[in-house]
Formats: sequence, structure tokens, C-alpha cells
Amino acid sequence: MTDPNSAPDRRLPGPVRVVGAGLLGASIGLGLRERGVDVILADASPAALALAVDYGAGRAAQPDDNPQLVVVAVPPDVTAEVVARELVAFPRAIVTDVASVKSGLLTELQRQGADITRYVGSHPMAGRERSGPIAARADLFTGRPWVIARHDAVRYQDAACVEDLALDLGATVVPMDPETHDRAVAFVSHAPQLVSTLMGSRLRDAPEGALGLAGGGVRDVTRVASSDPALWVQIIGANAHNVRPVLESLRAELDTLIEALAEPSAPGSRRAVAEAMTAGNLGVERLPGKHGTTRRFSQVVVLIDDRPGQIAALLTFIGELGINLEDLRLEHSPGAQIGIVEVSVVPEAEQRLVDELESAGWRIAAAWA
Amino acid sequence: MTDPNSAPDRRLPGPVRVVGAGLLGASIGLGLRERGVDVILADASPAALALAVDYGAGRAAQPDDNPQLVVVAVPPDVTAEVVARELVAFPRAIVTDVASVKSGLLTELQRQGADITRYVGSHPMAGRERSGPIAARADLFTGRPWVIARHDAVRYQDAACVEDLALDLGATVVPMDPETHDRAVAFVSHAPQLVSTLMGSRLRDAPEGALGLAGGGVRDVTRVASSDPALWVQIIGANAHNVRPVLESLRAELDTLIEALAEPSAPGSRRAVAEAMTAGNLGVERLPGKHGTTRRFSQVVVLIDDRPGQIAALLTFIGELGINLEDLRLEHSPGAQIGIVEVSVVPEAEQRLVDELESAGWRIAAAWA
Repeated sequence: MTDPNSAPDRRLPGPVRVVGAGLLGASIGLGLRERGVDVILADASPAALALAVDYGAGRAAQPDDNPQLVVVAVPPDVTAEVVARELVAFPRAIVTDVASVKSGLLTELQRQGADITRYVGSHPMAGRERSGPIAARADLFTGRPWVIARHDAVRYQDAACVEDLALDLGATVVPMDPETHDRAVAFVSHAPQLVSTLMGSRLRDAPEGALGLAGGGVRDVTRVASSDPALWVQIIGANAHNVRPVLESLRAELDTLIEALAEPSAPGSRRAVAEAMTAGNLGVERLPGKHGTTRRFSQVVVLIDDRPGQIAALLTFIGELGINLEDLRLEHSPGAQIGIVEVSVVPEAEQRLVDELESAGWRIAAAWA
Repeated sequence: MTDPNSAPDRRLPGPVRVVGAGLLGASIGLGLRERGVDVILADASPAALALAVDYGAGRAAQPDDNPQLVVVAVPPDVTAEVVARELVAFPRAIVTDVASVKSGLLTELQRQGADITRYVGSHPMAGRERSGPIAARADLFTGRPWVIARHDAVRYQDAACVEDLALDLGATVVPMDPETHDRAVAFVSHAPQLVSTLMGSRLRDAPEGALGLAGGGVRDVTRVASSDPALWVQIIGANAHNVRPVLESLRAELDTLIEALAEPSAPGSRRAVAEAMTAGNLGVERLPGKHGTTRRFSQVVVLIDDRPGQIAALLTFIGELGINLEDLRLEHSPGAQIGIVEVSVVPEAEQRLVDELESAGWRIAAAWA
């Protein structure tokens, strides 16, 4: 360690103990192992633990372990209990967790008399992948926001250790107090999940022929409706007090819409629908674009034959023009052996892209800024 | 026409008169012109008409025009009026329209005493592109469902002429009576639009910091919330009686959820959330996959540097393996110069794809079936 060239490329000295060898826990283990951190894994299931160890996510615990940091990555329902137990078991360690809801945890730990001067909750925003250590990857958190839920009882230096965890895993640190975090995820994660679920649920009643008309719109709206009920029951339960007001304000606007639809030609009905649509426009405009900006991109839609290599050939062509793709979507064409690729580029590049694609014989279905 | 080699590659002999030179009308004109059909364009705006003619979507009307088929592609609010006028002006032509709602139109035409034996409504499911003839493309309808809203007053041969229009434009014909169509689009288009709008509207109230935590979920749910209010007011107004019951059943489930969230630890509250989630799972499972099947695909998530050519290089690599991409998504990574590409492949190809990508040094973030 005296040779500067041998200094590890990491912030955390370790060891780090990870409790829970599911997707998040095993991914944290893999990521830290890549940086040479000593990772101690624990899981209530010996089989899951053995699998994660075989997978290279860390080693099994030893009686004399002395972790610098404990990361609790267990289901939301048991997180408080496990955090409290770890605080007692490792009286010199900082303890964090990765559950999706933060303020209830802190309250519960305070209620139990846990030593919260060594606890800092956190929440990596990398939750859409499926569960289990098999799905784990060292790069899971790269480029993702990782909320550090600081509170007044914890010292700056101790919270910094949890930030180091996020930074060593390539995430972007977002400091936020627990209640602000919980209110935020109610808007950008929990309410959207339930709204998608409610729309998905309606499709049970759709006539059979209706589903064949489904396009990109309904697919996007209902995509997350296929999420795991067991996990979401715990998340929604833990953040009910923040999710409820969002759903209540949605219900108020829904009531107005339903009333307007009862007499669509009555005075005010059209205005009610127009106002709802405009409010939706305004809300969505607040979402930051790629790289955290609100920049708008131009879209170019290209038709391709639906066989191997066609999308690659298209993107190779675009790459050779030196034009960066800001976004890319492939659309479903029910019943057709044709692919529809929508590429987003900076507006300045749109015309050149369209011209070059057309000269080269690509079929363009649409382009707009 | 006696030489079989000179026979036109089309079903419609023409001429076809297209009223309304917006995105749909101009695209129909371009597509038919490509097949050599004589297309007569009309638009209330002389400027829009001139633009579409310059664009090659057809020619201006002449006093002695005798169209075989008239396609009305004007805003929903004025469709009935224009269809009725065209039926009178061209007493030997079949008249169709492309509006998103069908049964009210037929009722209104009957009420006006129009000759509905020559009217067959239709609806090409190609509505997400932006408006105006500039965005028009001959291939806009390729591979898309095109509903033909047959009714009892029209003869088989006359309805066939509208099917020929759809087929000549490369669409997939979906016969459906007007009320069945309207009920179908309430489920798969109109209600999802309003649900997305209602969620998008909530984001107006989200704390500033919350938006930085937004991931793919909320973006997908709210994507169509940025749609044009003026158009959607007309569509929703015309199909209110079908959209309302879908929203009412959504409200009933929403009420149950809101009640459950008031006391999340009360008996039955968790079950209410779990049942809603499960219902959402079941509804979404009914959506057909690509090529009209319900086949599930495996997902592989690859991390790439965010610079020109990287996605192309990845897809070239996959194409050279002979593996077909069933779907493809690019994810936003706020604040990071890294791209996340999710590719869907048939499950049989997943392991080989992962192995080959890893051997070649690609960074895989996750893979699941």
C-alpha cells in the first residue's frame, strides 16, 4: 500500500457486509468485489447465499468479521428489523439499507431505540430488473441516481461512508431527507405504478378483438403493470401516506372527466377534457430529458425488414454519419414482417439524417421536431 | 392494359378523392400515387392543398372529376358534415373516412338522411405521428391494423373497395362493426390516453427534486400525456359513452386502493393492493406480443458508452450472430454519459447472446427471461 500505483481505485476501505443476496445485494457485492473490497455476504436462505458466493458477489461471514459498513438489502417488510439487528451485532459499523421507502424505517428504528447515529438509509433508483442473484450485475447502478437519506442524528462523516458506497458503484449521489424522498418517489414511482396497474386491470374486460388494435400508447402506459405484486404490496404499504394524496388528486380530476363524459356536448364538458389534457402536457414537460436537461429531440421513423442485421445496418449507417442517437425505439407491427425504428437526434441533425437516409435508400415513415 | 406486364400493382383502379391534406390524407395520397392511382386532393385551406400537391400527394380537383372512392380525412368534429357533402357531390362514389370514432358518425349520417349505402367508415391505427402534410409518408400505414367499420346498409362489394384502399397502402384489414370498434379503442387507446394524462397532470405538483429521480416507469406511463389537446377533445367527446364505463370501473378500483392506503396496516388493506396488482398483471398479459402472438421474450441489458456508433456496433455484433432483435429500448441515464440498451430476443437465443457479448467484452447489466 506504500506504492501509489497499488492504491485501490475505490473510496470504501471495507470490509462491507451485505445482508440479503437478491438482485440488489448481489449486485452491490459484485460491484464492490470488482474494486477489490472485501465483501461479506449473508442471507436467510443458505441456498441463495451459496449461489451469490459462487457468483463472485462476496464471501460467507466469519465469527470475527469487523465490517466498516453493513448494507441491508432485504424485502421492505423486514428491513427495519434486520437493520436494528445489524446495528447491535456490529456496534462499530455504519448501517444502511436500500429499501424504496425511507421515513417509516427511521421512525421505526427510533421507536425501537436503535442507535440511529450509525444508520443512514439509502435508495438506489435501479429497481426495474427482475429479482434474484442470477440477475445481479456489477454495473447495475452505473449512472443511476442513488438517494442518500441523511438525518440530523447522523454525523457528516458517517453519512459520507454511504455516499462512498454509491460512488464506488458508479451511481450519482442524490442527498435527500427521508420524507422528501418518500414524497418524491410517490410522484415518480409509486403513483405511476398504481396508475399503470389500474389501466392494465381494465384490459381484463376488453373485448378480444380490441387487443389486436393495441399500439405503442397502451403498451407504454401499462408496461410496469406487469411488476411483482408481492414486492409492491410492501412498497405501497410503507409509503401509503404519500401515495394516497397523489391518488386522491388524480381521483378529483378523474371525477371531473367522468362527469364531463356523461354529457359530452353540455357546456363546459369540452373545456374539462381540454383542461385535463393541457394539465397532462404541462406535467410531462417537467420531466428532465436525457443527461438531465429538458432539451427536445427530433424523431425520425424508419421502416426496416424484420430480419437479423437490419437495425444494426441502419445504426451503423447513422453512426458513420457521426450523428449520435439520443433515443431509440423499436415498434411492434402486429401481423407484419416489418420493423419500425424511431430514432431521436438533436434537431440540428434531423434534416441531414433524413437526406442521407433517403439517398441511401432507407424508407422513412415520418420525421418531426 | 392488354399486356399483363403493364397491369398496375394495385387493387383500386381509382380515381380516389382525398378530402383533407393533413398527415393522414397526404399519406394516403402519397401511398396511392406510388401505386399509380390518380389521386384528387381537396382541403379547406388552399395553402395546405398547394403544399400537399407540391409534395406529390395528388392533384387539385377538376370540375369533371368522377372518383371511384372518396376518403374523408378531416378533423373528427367535421367528419360527418364532410362525408354527407361528399356523398351528395359524388353520387356514384363510395365514401369512407379515417376518424378515430365510428358509430356516432354513422348515426349522424343516418339522421341527416345521407345515402349510407355508399358509406363505409374506417380507421387506420397509425395515429401517433405529428400533424400536417410535411410529416406525411407513403409508408405510414404499412403493417398497421386498419379497421373497416362495415354496417348492414352497405353492399359487400362496396365495403371491399375500402378494404382495397387499406391493402393498397400496406395495412392489415380488420373488419369490425362501428360500435365494437368504438368500444375497442376506448380500452386500448382512449382510456389509456386519459389515464396517462391524469398521471402526467400529477407531475405538476411534484417537488422539483422528485423529477430528477424519474426513471423509465413514469416516463412510459406518461409518454402519451404530451398528445395534442385539440385533437383529443374531439376524439374523447365522440366516444364518451364508451370511454366513461372504462373510467368508471377504474375509479371503483381506485376508490378501493385509496381506502386501503388510508389504513395500510388494517386487515384487508394489503390484500386490496395485492389484488389490484394481480389484476394489472392479468390485464397486461392479454396484450399480444410482436407479430400478433403472446410469446414472451428474454431481455438482455447492455451498457454502452454514449457516443456515435456504439449502439450500431452492438447491433452489428448481434446481427452477425444471426440473432433477431424482437424489441429494443434505449434508456435514459440522467447525469451519466452512458447508454443502457435493452434488447429482447427469443428465449432460446438469450444464453448464447449473453455468452457471446461477454466474450467480446460488452458490459451486460442484466438478463432475464
